[in-house]
Amino acid sequence: MLGNRGYEVVVYERRPDPRKGPLHGGRSINLALSHRGWKALEIAGVADEVRNIALPIQGRRMHAVDGTRTFQPYGLEGQCIYSVARGGLNRILVEKAEAMPNVSFEFNQRCHGYTLEENHVTLHLEQEGSKKDVNVERLFGTDGAFSAIRGRMMRNDRFDFEQRYLPHGYKEVPMMPGPNGDFQMEPDGLHIWPRGTFMLMALPNPDKTFTCTLFGPYEGPEGLNLLTTDEAVHAFFEKHFPDVMSLLPNLLEDWKKHPISSLVMTRCFPWNDGDRVALMGDSAHAIVPFYGQGMNSGMEDCTVLNGLLDDHDSWSDIMTRYTELRKPAGDAILELALQNYIEMRDLTGDKRFLQQKELEGRLQRAHPERWLPLYSQVTFSHTPYQDALARGRMQQKAMESVMANPAKWNHFTDDKWMEAALSALDTLQAART
Amino acid sequence: MLGNRGYEVVVYERRPDPRKGPLHGGRSINLALSHRGWKALEIAGVADEVRNIALPIQGRRMHAVDGTRTFQPYGLEGQCIYSVARGGLNRILVEKAEAMPNVSFEFNQRCHGYTLEENHVTLHLEQEGSKKDVNVERLFGTDGAFSAIRGRMMRNDRFDFEQRYLPHGYKEVPMMPGPNGDFQMEPDGLHIWPRGTFMLMALPNPDKTFTCTLFGPYEGPEGLNLLTTDEAVHAFFEKHFPDVMSLLPNLLEDWKKHPISSLVMTRCFPWNDGDRVALMGDSAHAIVPFYGQGMNSGMEDCTVLNGLLDDHDSWSDIMTRYTELRKPAGDAILELALQNYIEMRDLTGDKRFLQQKELEGRLQRAHPERWLPLYSQVTFSHTPYQDALARGRMQQKAMESVMANPAKWNHFTDDKWMEAALSALDTLQAART
Repeated sequence: MLGNRGYEVVVYERRPDPRKGPLHGGRSINLALSHRGWKALEIAGVADEVRNIALPIQGRRMHAVDGTRTFQPYGLEGQCIYSVARGGLNRILVEKAEAMPNVSFEFNQRCHGYTLEENHVTLHLEQEGSKKDVNVERLFGTDGAFSAIRGRMMRNDRFDFEQRYLPHGYKEVPMMPGPNGDFQMEPDGLHIWPRGTFMLMALPNPDKTFTCTLFGPYEGPEGLNLLTTDEAVHAFFEKHFPDVMSLLPNLLEDWKKHPISSLVMTRCFPWNDGDRVALMGDSAHAIVPFYGQGMNSGMEDCTVLNGLLDDHDSWSDIMTRYTELRKPAGDAILELALQNYIEMRDLTGDKRFLQQKELEGRLQRAHPERWLPLYSQVTFSHTPYQDALARGRMQQKAMESVMANPAKWNHFTDDKWMEAALSALDTLQAART
Repeated sequence: MLGNRGYEVVVYERRPDPRKGPLHGGRSINLALSHRGWKALEIAGVADEVRNIALPIQGRRMHAVDGTRTFQPYGLEGQCIYSVARGGLNRILVEKAEAMPNVSFEFNQRCHGYTLEENHVTLHLEQEGSKKDVNVERLFGTDGAFSAIRGRMMRNDRFDFEQRYLPHGYKEVPMMPGPNGDFQMEPDGLHIWPRGTFMLMALPNPDKTFTCTLFGPYEGPEGLNLLTTDEAVHAFFEKHFPDVMSLLPNLLEDWKKHPISSLVMTRCFPWNDGDRVALMGDSAHAIVPFYGQGMNSGMEDCTVLNGLLDDHDSWSDIMTRYTELRKPAGDAILELALQNYIEMRDLTGDKRFLQQKELEGRLQRAHPERWLPLYSQVTFSHTPYQDALARGRMQQKAMESVMANPAKWNHFTDDKWMEAALSALDTLQAART
């Protein structure tokens, strides 16, 4: 986006050029693209290329222990999220950017922070052991959850920072294509095996594989820390996910390939250092992956910054306003993502929860201008996350008040309850404003 | 304490030898010693020396805008806290420790973290630009709120950390001795000018001066950020602290000497890195200064570690147990200190609050085995902070239930309310356990 505006941009990247390495590198929870991400890709002019490698996911496919399966669509017909491979997306972004005459990349550059000078920023880099300093006019720290740019900011007076690990971890195992070379399960869904305190999840990849991820607590009677032997892993999957065992013939081998990965969340404030440095993406707001919004929220940072560049001339205003607009959004999506973990691993197996989702879907279809389910606000709209969170809480209360008395409403035969839900929501909204 | 147990101890200190510099160095909120600190000094065998430089403070002396003054004792007769000068205390501690043949000091050593090796810890130091590594068996990081040891631990997987700044700051100005060379106000009290969102505080020093500290919000209609001109500072003090103006003839000059200082709080987990490294004091739990427990809580870390050395042989057990015991205490004293800021700046000017304090004092004297006010539990006992916090909350509820109906109890003529308070407390306690 900065390149499109005519700025001279240099991207310093710690990793090697993604075009020179293997397409699939290392562990990674799959990337899910939704409205907020697409909007940024549209602005950057790369949405069409990305669409070629994106696999549509229509909803959640839940697997109960007894084999019962339930489908819950994410939104209205035609609304879906997209699974994309990290490597493929990175290649497209790098190639498109590098094709611009005013954008260049330097790979294998480790960043060691920066120094704010009167008229520029000095960026401290290291390549294969040799250090160099680079003077730049402005610096956007997009160096991830363990950002060195943010590490430098932490020494600023009154810079708030928090890194907190979830007491849960995860392990990924791949599900290969079947004997016919095709997907082994429906490729249009995010598969979930909700089991209360833990869950198995599977997201399809364009190469006909699924990435299966077990999320669960490290400690406790069903803790991941107990799964240290072939027998324990086999017994655990057999007991909790019997329908998937035959689809994962290499489970025990794959299980041993990687340690359990941790899940970190970070929050900080402010996101800018004066008018010269700003944090974007995970460096400003690393979240847990359960809402599929990690990448989307980072891309929305870009959209918002781009909008500020349209509206303001002063970089001091742009940077200050950027923090003001995005800090509440970052806090809100972190909270939403934490909530969604509980929803996915526990509530998606709950009958009442699924009923509520269905009712909300009907309400949305009947009154699209008055009711947008929380998931849709987050995934299929550009409503600021903090507003979605607040509105979602009110909608939840409204639905609870309607569902509290099942005798009073025959939800599935008539629609009288809808007015009650909408008027409860209006009352809550009025009380708030 | 480690020296007393026969360990070979080297203290690497970033600052110069305190015996070679000026006695009063830099800004510092005065140190307040109470029971927990004294206990550690007793164990270390330095309490008598420290007592010589400690000034007893019997209670709070509140100054209302209209000049009304109120005294509120901290505890029972004979119970007090002690003001000590940081420089004097440091000298005593260094001299006493260095007199031991197995303890030595290395000053002017900047620490850059450590590396955990199989059989030792490598400590990375820098003295006047030249770096050196030192191998030690075990490392205790007592390097303060911005600890480099903790900075290294932050890169450990699943290490939680938070640094958060209070939206309030402070500025210190000295109050010199009067024309007769003596204190200008009663030296037996911590003087407070409670003004709601901000306060002035004055703590006596052994050299007949007071350190006056203005605490207040950076921003807002009465924000410290507005006090940028002589006129603004003069008008602010004249309006809010008229009785202190004549005692601070150099106020305007002193005000300009230092910027506003910020107040940082840190929390982290765990406090140990395996069986070789532990954080103690501010590096593990930097708190705000409003309970006078910053130093005391750090010294209690030492007392607890010393107790663990008595009870355990395995360093792995000692370090794990140290985190288990002290992390809840650190979280609790941070919360208590934040509460006490509100109490000091707001409630100490509140009639009902002072009445409750008086009633609690009477309750304590009548039933010392059943009622210990929260302040006394924190300051004059060795009850773990987290237990004091929990018990204090219950006592607060019990007092509220009794004071809610002033018509029912004639608190100041008979003692019938006492049984009601005690039985309310018993009920709460029973419900908890």
